[in-house]
Amino acid sequence: MLNLCAAKWEPRWVDFFGGETRTPEYRAVNEMGEVPVLEHRGKRLSQSGVILHYLAAHFGKFAGGNEDERREILRWMFWDNHKLTSYIATLRYMVHLAKVGEPQVHDFLRGRMKASLGILDSHLQNRSFAIGDRPTIADLSLCGYLYWPDEFASAGRITPGVGAWLERLRALPGWVHPYELCPGIQERVESRLPFDGAADRRDLLLWADAGVGDLHHRLEKAIQPAVILELERGVET
Amino acid sequence: MLNLCAAKWEPRWVDFFGGETRTPEYRAVNEMGEVPVLEHRGKRLSQSGVILHYLAAHFGKFAGGNEDERREILRWMFWDNHKLTSYIATLRYMVHLAKVGEPQVHDFLRGRMKASLGILDSHLQNRSFAIGDRPTIADLSLCGYLYWPDEFASAGRITPGVGAWLERLRALPGWVHPYELCPGIQERVESRLPFDGAADRRDLLLWADAGVGDLHHRLEKAIQPAVILELERGVET
Repeated sequence: MLNLCAAKWEPRWVDFFGGETRTPEYRAVNEMGEVPVLEHRGKRLSQSGVILHYLAAHFGKFAGGNEDERREILRWMFWDNHKLTSYIATLRYMVHLAKVGEPQVHDFLRGRMKASLGILDSHLQNRSFAIGDRPTIADLSLCGYLYWPDEFASAGRITPGVGAWLERLRALPGWVHPYELCPGIQERVESRLPFDGAADRRDLLLWADAGVGDLHHRLEKAIQPAVILELERGVET
Repeated sequence: MLNLCAAKWEPRWVDFFGGETRTPEYRAVNEMGEVPVLEHRGKRLSQSGVILHYLAAHFGKFAGGNEDERREILRWMFWDNHKLTSYIATLRYMVHLAKVGEPQVHDFLRGRMKASLGILDSHLQNRSFAIGDRPTIADLSLCGYLYWPDEFASAGRITPGVGAWLERLRALPGWVHPYELCPGIQERVESRLPFDGAADRRDLLLWADAGVGDLHHRLEKAIQPAVILELERGVET
């Protein structure tokens, strides 16, 4: 979302694996103990769905054009939070990143994810984007975890309808693969090296953990833009 | 929500356990294959979070008073869809109603639910309702599954902060325990009898399944108001 809106930003880590999100200091930032948090002009927002709505209004991009469209966007974003990205994110974290959880739990999450991908595929059979002919924050929410199908253990075979939709999103001006949002980030994640951010992106701070797992989540979410952000110095619009 | 807004309504079943939500006819109503669906004045809405927003606007009740409040409501509703009601609903369905799923999956859901209830309890330590001094649709979303703590297998011990908040909601004018929304409903659910609705509530149709499980979900959600509704004859405002 941020790149698609040409915002400048830089990363800043939260030590998720070191327990930072469980500290009183972090809970004062977000009582839900989650990243991302967006800070902008004295407001502190969390939940990527809220942040997407905020940025859509701020940039005047990817929003609904009328009440019906806004409700349709909200519908798909609630569904995504409940039925798609939620399950994929948990499965990917367990199987690919932290390598935790029992096989029965993986199978449970995999089954839910497959059913949801089927619903999404059907929905995309006769439209280009989630709510019609143009991309909105609903697409940016839904696509968040779908650019790493190999990272949820072959459970996430991307169907043709979903695949074509991902290609349409990829073709948007400014689209960058999450792993390319910060040069060298994938290697740093894999080697668990800290990363202090790209000096040329100073308008916005992205907070993410320096550990092995959640950083992926945060980075991929930079696209949707579920990263911990500080926009206090202003988003370039 | 409907009762709290003094809407008139009557129940109408969807045969969830008989597979009705998987039929092409039902998918034409809601491609997500879920209840509730709200139909009102030619609009067909699904996702309880969307329906709550719609009804809040329609009735002028339980909405946010400004942009900050609306974002805070949305934040807690996204969190609820991702982290609280979602896990509780699935756990309760598996353990109490359909008696399916493996113990490891139950434990996984239980752990997630407990963590979320802890976050909600902390949040309610210094405020009466989710976003402050008055109830909103965020509360109605969050409370949906919490009036049956015995139905998610002792995993959902209600902490004092959450318990006091549930009592505050229970004290709202018009509040009715979900099992009392339709007289005799609990027995009918347990005996799997069909139920054709209360004749004295004719302005609104509630569609729910006649099976053992999802009917509970729909009824409890009548409060939030995630039931399948037909409001085509108009909500009494």
